[in-house]
Amino acid sequence: MSGVYKKIEVVGTSKESFAHATKVAIEEAAKTVKNTSWFEVAEMRGAIKDGKVSEFQVTVRIGFKIEH
Amino acid sequence: MSGVYKKIEVVGTSKESFAHATKVAIEEAAKTVKNTSWFEVAEMRGAIKDGKVSEFQVTVRIGFKIEH
Amino acid sequence: MSGVYKKIEVVGTSKESFAHATKVAIEEAAKTVKNTSWFEVAEMRGAIKDGKVSEFQVTVRIGFKIEH
Amino acid sequence: MSGVYKKIEVVGTSKESFAHATKVAIEEAAKTVKNTSWFEVAEMRGAIKDGKVSEFQVTVRIGFKIEH
Amino acid sequence: MSGVYKKIEVVGTSKESFAHATKVAIEEAAKTVKNTSWFEVAEMRGAIKDGKVSEFQVTVRIGFKIEH
Amino acid sequence: MSGVYKKIEVVGTSKESFAHATKVAIEEAAKTVKNTSWFEVAEMRGAIKDGKVSEFQVTVRIGFKIEH
Amino acid sequence: MSGVYKKIEVVGTSKESFAHATKVAIEEAAKTVKNTSWFEVAEMRGAIKDGKVSEFQVTVRIGFKIEH
Amino acid sequence: MSGVYKKIEVVGTSKESFAHATKVAIEEAAKTVKNTSWFEVAEMRGAIKDGKVSEFQVTVRIGFKIEH
Amino acid sequence: MSGVYKKIEVVGTSKESFAHATKVAIEEAAKTVKNTSWFEVAEMRGAIKDGKVSEFQVTVRIGFKIEH
Amino acid sequence: MSGVYKKIEVVGTSKESFAHATKVAIEEAAKTVKNTSWFEVAEMRGAIKDGKVSEFQVTVRIGFKIEH
Amino acid sequence: MSGVYKKIEVVGTSKESFAHATKVAIEEAAKTVKNTSWFEVAEMRGAIKDGKVSEFQVTVRIGFKIEH
Amino acid sequence: MSGVYKKIEVVGTSKESFAHATKVAIEEAAKTVKNTSWFEVAEMRGAIKDGKVSEFQVTVRIGFKIEH
Repeated sequence: MSGVYKKIEVVGTSKESFAHATKVAIEEAAKTVKNTSWFEVAEMRGAIKDGKVSEFQVTVRIGFKIEH
Repeated sequence: MSGVYKKIEVVGTSKESFAHATKVAIEEAAKTVKNTSWFEVAEMRGAIKDGKVSEFQVTVRIGFKIEH
Repeated sequence: MSGVYKKIEVVGTSKESFAHATKVAIEEAAKTVKNTSWFEVAEMRGAIKDGKVSEFQVTVRIGFKIEH
Repeated sequence: MSGVYKKIEVVGTSKESFAHATKVAIEEAAKTVKNTSWFEVAEMRGAIKDGKVSEFQVTVRIGFKIEH
Repeated sequence: MSGVYKKIEVVGTSKESFAHATKVAIEEAAKTVKNTSWFEVAEMRGAIKDGKVSEFQVTVRIGFKIEH
Repeated sequence: MSGVYKKIEVVGTSKESFAHATKVAIEEAAKTVKNTSWFEVAEMRGAIKDGKVSEFQVTVRIGFKIEH
Repeated sequence: MSGVYKKIEVVGTSKESFAHATKVAIEEAAKTVKNTSWFEVAEMRGAIKDGKVSEFQVTVRIGFKIEH
Repeated sequence: MSGVYKKIEVVGTSKESFAHATKVAIEEAAKTVKNTSWFEVAEMRGAIKDGKVSEFQVTVRIGFKIEH
Repeated sequence: MSGVYKKIEVVGTSKESFAHATKVAIEEAAKTVKNTSWFEVAEMRGAIKDGKVSEFQVTVRIGFKIEH
Repeated sequence: MSGVYKKIEVVGTSKESFAHATKVAIEEAAKTVKNTSWFEVAEMRGAIKDGKVSEFQVTVRIGFKIEH
Repeated sequence: MSGVYKKIEVVGTSKESFAHATKVAIEEAAKTVKNTSWFEVAEMRGAIKDGKVSEFQVTVRIGFKIEH
Repeated sequence: MSGVYKKIEVVGTSKESFAHATKVAIEEAAKTVKNTSWFEVAEMRGAIKDGKVSEFQVTVRIGFKIEH
């Protein structure tokens, strides 16, 4: 690691698991940001419907290198 | 979201994963509380037996609407 | 629980999920420490490669009984 | 203060302000719990609609004396 | 530990010590809740009268198994 | 809630109240970001002038859905 | 901002709102301390009487320049 | 509780217990500050000598009413 | 204090009090580590049996000088 | 301070010191963002190579005024 | 360490580094308070001017023995 | 990063700066632990003598790969 990095906060959602919601967030971010290189889980929450988990929600801070 | 909500803290356990322990907590709570609508993960722990994870334990705060 | 315990901090990694990274940490620790009995998740992070999660990293505090 | 107290977590909502959402939570709790005597703000959030705050949400921990 | 657990928050008070206030909270909770099995100290405060500690106040989260 | 969301951090200021500073932040953000749907209060501060509050400052994290 | 500052912790109370309790704390502090220039909200609590909020209590850390 | 309060931070020490160190802090503060009415434990530490606890150290925030 | 120190995390248990559980942790650590010089309380928990506190558990971080 | 501000999170790196890594982050951010006016240190980490610090890494939240 | 201590919060500023801002705070405090013996860093912030760090600001809690 | 890592907590001290105290901790740890690869600052404190900073103390968590 060298240079300067930026962190953005993205929330991924999934019907399956926290790991999958995390992947969803990372892959979506990669569509608009280049050089994403690490993530940190900031929060785990979710929605409930009819007494069951209907959605896992994971907030990740994603770090990426600033290019010139 | 509108009205007034209550949050309770429930610990779910699972031999499989954090996501499954979360589902166990939500589904058990739904047996006695109506209108459960969201959850927040407060803590993740677990038990070890013979050098392996024997149980994932997830504490979730569960929010539900107060009815009249 | 009775007696005296020690806690150590171990980081497990996995290409699959947070639960698997946790298992990896616990099983590695058990190779050198006896009596491991519980764990607490302290941090969840990960690495990104080519816009995808390449590794889940879970820091766990592992508790074990001190023997004489 | 003397004796034993219990704390419950309630979320009040309001279109006006954080203070009003707090009042809503306290007054609703008082309908089912006796002896409520203090509160602690645990979280402040809210909903947005059409680019404006549509709802202030305040989570309060409410303390009340346990009676016999 | 297996199954599903609930945590409640109780404040015990004592003129003697933090340990005694903790015991007071646990014993009071046991009068109305079955299967209490562990506690976590969440906060330690107290009251002062005539320049001396008149009361130790300990907030404990108490965990107990949900039965069917 | 479904899909992927981003959170940004905005500080609103007001001479009146914390609630008003929050509204200012939300309404300003809506000028450049679409789909804002919730906010979380991260910090409350303010400025003092001539011994009086001259400004309430509220930092809010604002969540909005990422569109394609 | 330059030089050296001190921070003190003051609790303001109000029957109206958190913003008003904050103002009360700032104005009281200004009676005995010169150069107060900013505040940070550290805690929000309150008292309940007859099932209604009887008092909002806001703890603020107040910063002021040390003079010579 | 009504009016305006100030909080100061005091560290009490004791060879006996956390509760005693707390009492020492409160009683010392009362020698120079009037109207002390509550305390909050902020930190618990201590010194070790010859492999034994030689001193319990408790940092308490002490609240007292500002008089005119 | 000068030189370099290490901190380890130890959990002491006691049927009596938090202070005693702390002493148990410190004295056990001293059996295998030299130069222990201070401790910081990281967590206070406990076990409940038959509706009474059966064990106080205190996690302490213990600092000691690294020798050559 | 008046108006509305945004905060972004930037990680600066340096072989020299935390202060230098902070400067690197601030100066890089200023290349693309106007009106940067304050920063808050959120995290300090670093890399190690051959048993020596090879890089100081400081995460700063940078505040800047939103213009029209 | 023995006896009773007080902690005060002071903010030092410097154009050079966090370490220097810390020294500035400690030396200023020593002008009016006797027996200062330790400090704890509570917060690191700073000001930006023309896209460069114009000031490092460090909030330190300073401990000193209360004399009679 | 792949495999399993351990984190240890070390306190470095220096008369010069936080950065130097950090280096001291890292270099001392490297004398007895192989493969140290990153550090996280956990706490910054220091000692005061004759009204001046006599020592900067930095607690770092140091991560290193576990070998077989």
